[in-house]
Amino acid sequence: MGKVRVACFSISLDGYGAGPQQSLNNPLGVRGAELHQWVFPTKNFQEQVLGKTGGTTGLDNDFVIRGFENVGAWILGRNMFGPVRGPWKDDSWKGWWGDEPPYHVPVFVLTHHARAPIEMKGGTIFYFVTGGIEEALKKAKDAAGSKDVRIGGGVSTLRQYLEAGLIDEIHFAVAPVFLGGGENIFTGLDLNKLGYRSVGQVPSENVSHILVKKSK
Amino acid sequence: MGKVRVACFSISLDGYGAGPQQSLNNPLGVRGAELHQWVFPTKNFQEQVLGKTGGTTGLDNDFVIRGFENVGAWILGRNMFGPVRGPWKDDSWKGWWGDEPPYHVPVFVLTHHARAPIEMKGGTIFYFVTGGIEEALKKAKDAAGSKDVRIGGGVSTLRQYLEAGLIDEIHFAVAPVFLGGGENIFTGLDLNKLGYRSVGQVPSENVSHILVKKSK
Repeated sequence: MGKVRVACFSISLDGYGAGPQQSLNNPLGVRGAELHQWVFPTKNFQEQVLGKTGGTTGLDNDFVIRGFENVGAWILGRNMFGPVRGPWKDDSWKGWWGDEPPYHVPVFVLTHHARAPIEMKGGTIFYFVTGGIEEALKKAKDAAGSKDVRIGGGVSTLRQYLEAGLIDEIHFAVAPVFLGGGENIFTGLDLNKLGYRSVGQVPSENVSHILVKKSK
Repeated sequence: MGKVRVACFSISLDGYGAGPQQSLNNPLGVRGAELHQWVFPTKNFQEQVLGKTGGTTGLDNDFVIRGFENVGAWILGRNMFGPVRGPWKDDSWKGWWGDEPPYHVPVFVLTHHARAPIEMKGGTIFYFVTGGIEEALKKAKDAAGSKDVRIGGGVSTLRQYLEAGLIDEIHFAVAPVFLGGGENIFTGLDLNKLGYRSVGQVPSENVSHILVKKSK
């Protein structure tokens, strides 16, 4: 059976995984993009997410590649899927990623508002799950089979899965910036008590990659 | 004129600079010692703080050495000086560091309770300042002359000086552990808004050294 894992999850030095005031024009929140400066130039991001050629190779790119490897299904929070809040007004919003999202596998989106699945180009199918995090994880595991389930985020989704002790591995990328506001991953959450241990740190020029595992 | 700086200030991945429940037997709070694993083995710490020989050289040791260089005066919070709370019962407590503390310059201790200065071996003199952080800084600057003032900690003292915008440079050492409780350096503090910027990260095998400066 595969693992439940989080990868390439960028946070600031002061623990924020997104800036405040997420919006259509500012999907990562104010200054949130500063957390991801390490990932944007990488070859894998350029190719897999933007459909471009070129980009950097090396340590940071290796982490991006590893993040996508062996993933059989994804789980995303509603806010990571889009800026729409409350009931879906229509079916026009299909994620931030254009016609061919970079997932290429089933993606389960947590929401309080039911919606029919959307089949995208390249194998990505968005399913909307209204039954909560455990139901989403069950469906994602069924879809992933022997492969891993990757929890993409955002912060609120990650916190809920951490609190429930349902995540096996996390790869944080700690960016050398202070956000000072937004969504904090650590406030009020005792990762140590929940069984999570830092098992390694791999510094690159741009970020500090921190590897975390749940003790059995 | 010298700088006002913080050096070798160890924090956890989740932003704690000390564990909970500081006491005589647990001066760094529960699990607080885990933050400082990078510094204990270094040659400079072994020699200057413990009076021993041996120890590791290299990057971490270089940061410890640099932390002590050109320091003309220190400022410490009451809790960093000792576990005594409230009025001084007698003059018996003289810090955690034995007869010859590693400072070798004037050290200004913030407290609400007046006490006569204590002259220790090796040039350290502990002065007790009851007039608040600005008075302590003025006295420390006068004592330091052209040299730097180093603010040693703990967390509450550092937070007060940061909020007042009185610190020029900080060197954090981010240890790869989660404390989950204790004294948090970032909660409710917007370092970005206060003008602080990360200007570099230098990873060692043991910690991530983060260099921060206040923009003018």
